[in-house]
Amino acid sequence: MKALVIHAARDLRIEDRDVQAPGAGQVAIKLATGGICGSDLHYFNHGGFGSIRLREPMILGHEVAGYVTQLGKDVVGLNAGQLVGVSPSRPCYACKYCREAMYNQCLNMRFYGSAMPYPHIQGAFREYLVADASQCVAADGLTSGEAAMAEPLAVTLHATRRAGEVLGKSVLVTGCGPIGILAILAARRAGADTVVATDLNEFTLNMAKQAVADITLNMASTPDALDTYKADKGCFDILYECSGAQAALANAIAAMRPGATILQLGLGGDMTLPMMQITAKELILKGSFRFHSEYATAIALMKRQLIDVKPLITETVALQNAVKGFELANDRSAAMKVQIAFA
Amino acid sequence: MKALVIHAARDLRIEDRDVQAPGAGQVAIKLATGGICGSDLHYFNHGGFGSIRLREPMILGHEVAGYVTQLGKDVVGLNAGQLVGVSPSRPCYACKYCREAMYNQCLNMRFYGSAMPYPHIQGAFREYLVADASQCVAADGLTSGEAAMAEPLAVTLHATRRAGEVLGKSVLVTGCGPIGILAILAARRAGADTVVATDLNEFTLNMAKQAVADITLNMASTPDALDTYKADKGCFDILYECSGAQAALANAIAAMRPGATILQLGLGGDMTLPMMQITAKELILKGSFRFHSEYATAIALMKRQLIDVKPLITETVALQNAVKGFELANDRSAAMKVQIAFA
Amino acid sequence: MKALVIHAARDLRIEDRDVQAPGAGQVAIKLATGGICGSDLHYFNHGGFGSIRLREPMILGHEVAGYVTQLGKDVVGLNAGQLVGVSPSRPCYACKYCREAMYNQCLNMRFYGSAMPYPHIQGAFREYLVADASQCVAADGLTSGEAAMAEPLAVTLHATRRAGEVLGKSVLVTGCGPIGILAILAARRAGADTVVATDLNEFTLNMAKQAVADITLNMASTPDALDTYKADKGCFDILYECSGAQAALANAIAAMRPGATILQLGLGGDMTLPMMQITAKELILKGSFRFHSEYATAIALMKRQLIDVKPLITETVALQNAVKGFELANDRSAAMKVQIAFA
Amino acid sequence: MKALVIHAARDLRIEDRDVQAPGAGQVAIKLATGGICGSDLHYFNHGGFGSIRLREPMILGHEVAGYVTQLGKDVVGLNAGQLVGVSPSRPCYACKYCREAMYNQCLNMRFYGSAMPYPHIQGAFREYLVADASQCVAADGLTSGEAAMAEPLAVTLHATRRAGEVLGKSVLVTGCGPIGILAILAARRAGADTVVATDLNEFTLNMAKQAVADITLNMASTPDALDTYKADKGCFDILYECSGAQAALANAIAAMRPGATILQLGLGGDMTLPMMQITAKELILKGSFRFHSEYATAIALMKRQLIDVKPLITETVALQNAVKGFELANDRSAAMKVQIAFA
Repeated sequence: MKALVIHAARDLRIEDRDVQAPGAGQVAIKLATGGICGSDLHYFNHGGFGSIRLREPMILGHEVAGYVTQLGKDVVGLNAGQLVGVSPSRPCYACKYCREAMYNQCLNMRFYGSAMPYPHIQGAFREYLVADASQCVAADGLTSGEAAMAEPLAVTLHATRRAGEVLGKSVLVTGCGPIGILAILAARRAGADTVVATDLNEFTLNMAKQAVADITLNMASTPDALDTYKADKGCFDILYECSGAQAALANAIAAMRPGATILQLGLGGDMTLPMMQITAKELILKGSFRFHSEYATAIALMKRQLIDVKPLITETVALQNAVKGFELANDRSAAMKVQIAFA
Repeated sequence: MKALVIHAARDLRIEDRDVQAPGAGQVAIKLATGGICGSDLHYFNHGGFGSIRLREPMILGHEVAGYVTQLGKDVVGLNAGQLVGVSPSRPCYACKYCREAMYNQCLNMRFYGSAMPYPHIQGAFREYLVADASQCVAADGLTSGEAAMAEPLAVTLHATRRAGEVLGKSVLVTGCGPIGILAILAARRAGADTVVATDLNEFTLNMAKQAVADITLNMASTPDALDTYKADKGCFDILYECSGAQAALANAIAAMRPGATILQLGLGGDMTLPMMQITAKELILKGSFRFHSEYATAIALMKRQLIDVKPLITETVALQNAVKGFELANDRSAAMKVQIAFA
Repeated sequence: MKALVIHAARDLRIEDRDVQAPGAGQVAIKLATGGICGSDLHYFNHGGFGSIRLREPMILGHEVAGYVTQLGKDVVGLNAGQLVGVSPSRPCYACKYCREAMYNQCLNMRFYGSAMPYPHIQGAFREYLVADASQCVAADGLTSGEAAMAEPLAVTLHATRRAGEVLGKSVLVTGCGPIGILAILAARRAGADTVVATDLNEFTLNMAKQAVADITLNMASTPDALDTYKADKGCFDILYECSGAQAALANAIAAMRPGATILQLGLGGDMTLPMMQITAKELILKGSFRFHSEYATAIALMKRQLIDVKPLITETVALQNAVKGFELANDRSAAMKVQIAFA
Repeated sequence: MKALVIHAARDLRIEDRDVQAPGAGQVAIKLATGGICGSDLHYFNHGGFGSIRLREPMILGHEVAGYVTQLGKDVVGLNAGQLVGVSPSRPCYACKYCREAMYNQCLNMRFYGSAMPYPHIQGAFREYLVADASQCVAADGLTSGEAAMAEPLAVTLHATRRAGEVLGKSVLVTGCGPIGILAILAARRAGADTVVATDLNEFTLNMAKQAVADITLNMASTPDALDTYKADKGCFDILYECSGAQAALANAIAAMRPGATILQLGLGGDMTLPMMQITAKELILKGSFRFHSEYATAIALMKRQLIDVKPLITETVALQNAVKGFELANDRSAAMKVQIAFA
């Protein structure tokens, strides 16, 4: 079978790999769709990010869906031929954090396509994938493209659960890449009242508008656009910070009302923050990282047509054009989510 | 002006009352629509409920909307001619509970149309109403019927805030009168996944279906319908108990998963409950009573078309036919919300 | 070895049982002390409670501590000769509730000395016990009597965690058996301000006084003693209901302030409750059942001398006098916690 | 009467001011004790901090207690001669944050001795003070020195309420000035298990030891002392950051376990933080600012002898030696809380 393997920055190859057979409790899946995520792009563009660097070839990919081809021993609840979303979250279920059900903090996490440990955790961009049945969520009725979106949607559902009360609240989203747009959808689904979104280009802001943000602000053309929201100590109840940019976070802090919650989803390096404001306004800054049970929730809400992710899928390329897909995904002014069709 | 005055059980009269002028901070409102609530029906049918009994004539009504006709001194933010929903919640803002922002627990509450204190608190079913500007929420773009629904909607938004996490959760609603149907809408708006609704007649269950409950169960024709949900200690995360019936609550308890939250909205008398189950499954039973800030949220969510209450308004009668409207409202197998058109 | 076996109501025998050897991950323990719990008494007095009935002989006991005599393969962190408290909570770590870290709701729980499933789960009142190392918490520096108190203390620590904010709060405890007294200690440890305790006899109320309750009320001699706390809708923030008596709970509800939390620890049958008050005051009634991680917390707090349980241990009897110990424990006007010395 | 007036950095004068008479709802107080706070020291040393600068002479002081000398009209519940702690928190009770009971965020706060607004809010270091009865909490049985400590204690009780669950938790305190030491006492009172405290000098660490921290770490002499706590992603559940120093916070972050709560009490300027760690470990960073209702709680807990602040009061100087008191308070290696005796 073919797999999409990153060797170094700008060195992404389609290579042959052996097909595996499913063991007990596992299923074999013929992959249908894989979405390119920001971290995939980091490996592609830079060979890693921060202190996490490629040290050996690694199959990329963790946003995937496909069709079950074979059931291993003792698997119940899934059928051959069925479309499934495959969660990349593979905790050990045995470490102290797993024992507290903090699975996204597992000390032995084997998240697809991650160069954090060495040997690296190989990813899921491959024609055939063997996964634990517990990773698979039946996605009947969805397209494989939608099912592959369950992963980034789960990221924003997880953040939304961490937000506390959303119903009737006023929400700011900074950074309208796929995570930002999905954050808008998740906040809306959880009952947000006003949603304001900021970014630096019109393409993503138009997607935000469609998502449905009430107000979109282009911080490149109108850098002071948030100032009007800063009166009387600020007005937003919740911030989804999806840009990973210090400037976006620092500016947004002044627009948050006292006691507001900031969800930091964007991954950046060290940031210099106005701690006096955070302290005096008693803001609550919460990191939000990946997900676990929310993967199934993402599939469930899409199946009930309570969240529609299809407009985000702006390009789909065939596997042989995968490198071109990565190039497209790099252009944030033209592409939102780029997916690879594996079959 | 005309007002709708209850004198005793089954003695509801249209009487003349003097029109008042708005004082400082107040507005005069020409009433457009008033919705008949369960408590109005209790006064109409029985002259009260429990230990709360009519001791003098009382104008009924607390679900009202109308058009501003005159602004008192110092009123800003409202305009003559504007449609407003008028919150019946009038706390003192000075007692110890108000000082903790627990306004629905105010020791001196003057909730419209309530015979709890004596002299009674006169209600809002009258052609002209003088209200504090702080009670009024601009409802531009809504019909007056929708705006009058802000009150019962606020009851269910308040309960939903008390529910904790709703996003992706499994919800049971027992009792599909107006509060039950609005609870379904509120739970959906807050991101519920599965919603199951129970009642004893098909009319209300059809409304639930439309609301949109995934599954409706007629407990009159299939009394064991919840049993399938009781396996493995139960499966629902949240119960909105809207019937006030002991049998509904006691039966539902067995279908709640460990740690689940029960919101008791229905007003009943003493109830015999299976405390062993509540204790052993660590259920959380929360009373939910009225609302305060959620009134404005209700209007806001309707204005953004995030909640649609129009299907619930099954009848509208003219003021002169108000008594007939009360009779209609008594027939739960044919009427959901009955409203009175005051103009 | 000897074990304490209940055959039927009032038929408690000291019998011989085989000594087991510890397997991998297990330890052998020479039991030192076992405390008699209310559920042990139920089996002794009535052969069960509610629908839970003895169907075969069962070793009683789940409040135990002893000395490690032998380590099984792969056990680290424990030493031979060391005093350990042994948690009776043995979840499967695999069912859906365990996977959510709701271990006290495990579908396959094997809690020592419980006749709920059949075959029954044999208890820990035996001279030698083999337990999983994960059940054992080193109790160096404590007496074995204190260590055996970790179990009921954990029950009240678990309830206290469920109480939400305790610091500076006003607490009512109804029922001053061992759980009630430990609830006072736990609430004090968590920062409660006023603590009021009620019971029906002076012996337990004196223990409460010592525990340190600020005020104790004898509801037998002064049935109206709580009335003074009912003004302005009530004043207690938290209730630990430890009696399992409907009258105690129903009476206390009127003394709870709006929004207050009621922790139901006492196990009783069906109870008739004033639901109108629960609803209108928006009380929060939470079941609280057993514990899991709090067992280690109980040992930790005792080791740091932050909670002192020694005054509760009013009697210690030798194993051969165990039946007398059960008789003593039945007299709530003279005994608080009765423990059996196994060595 | 005499008052202690700051004119500029290092220009602190004892000046005459007129004595006022209490109006309705007010009381006159003969001041007994005033504690010197860090913000008083900022005015004394630097004429302000950050953008907050002295623009006119201002009476300092907000940690005060004294004896009621006269009751204004309509005051109930206080008696002449009674010792009271006087809360410096004077919100307007009318702005939008006050209406939500977020009194410490009042838009019109008149906190004693604050140069934030202009004209400045005059402080309480004066021989006679007129205060609203609602600011006064009866402190019978305490010394006036203890009663004056209610203010900084309230700061740490407020933070502790924001900490969520403390019972049995592992706590780190960075910075052992008066707020740090009181944080230790508050965390202990709320049931913390392990408490570790860090600072840069032995004097304050000895106070921490006495408070009772289990472990104290001198980061000046052993800069790597926290490294042992950083294994497996860190181990502390709660951090009270009381130093306002970026280095302390950034270093502590690596020792916090996933999901841990950081309470930022220390007031510093902008800080550069390891956002990747905050995000990936899902830390919760909460500002904590002043207090409101916790002032009464502070007095209550001291009166019940549940918190003992007396060891913190290391120096008391007479009013005429106030400037010397400020100099003493500047020496963190020799003084903890310095108080001024006004009578």
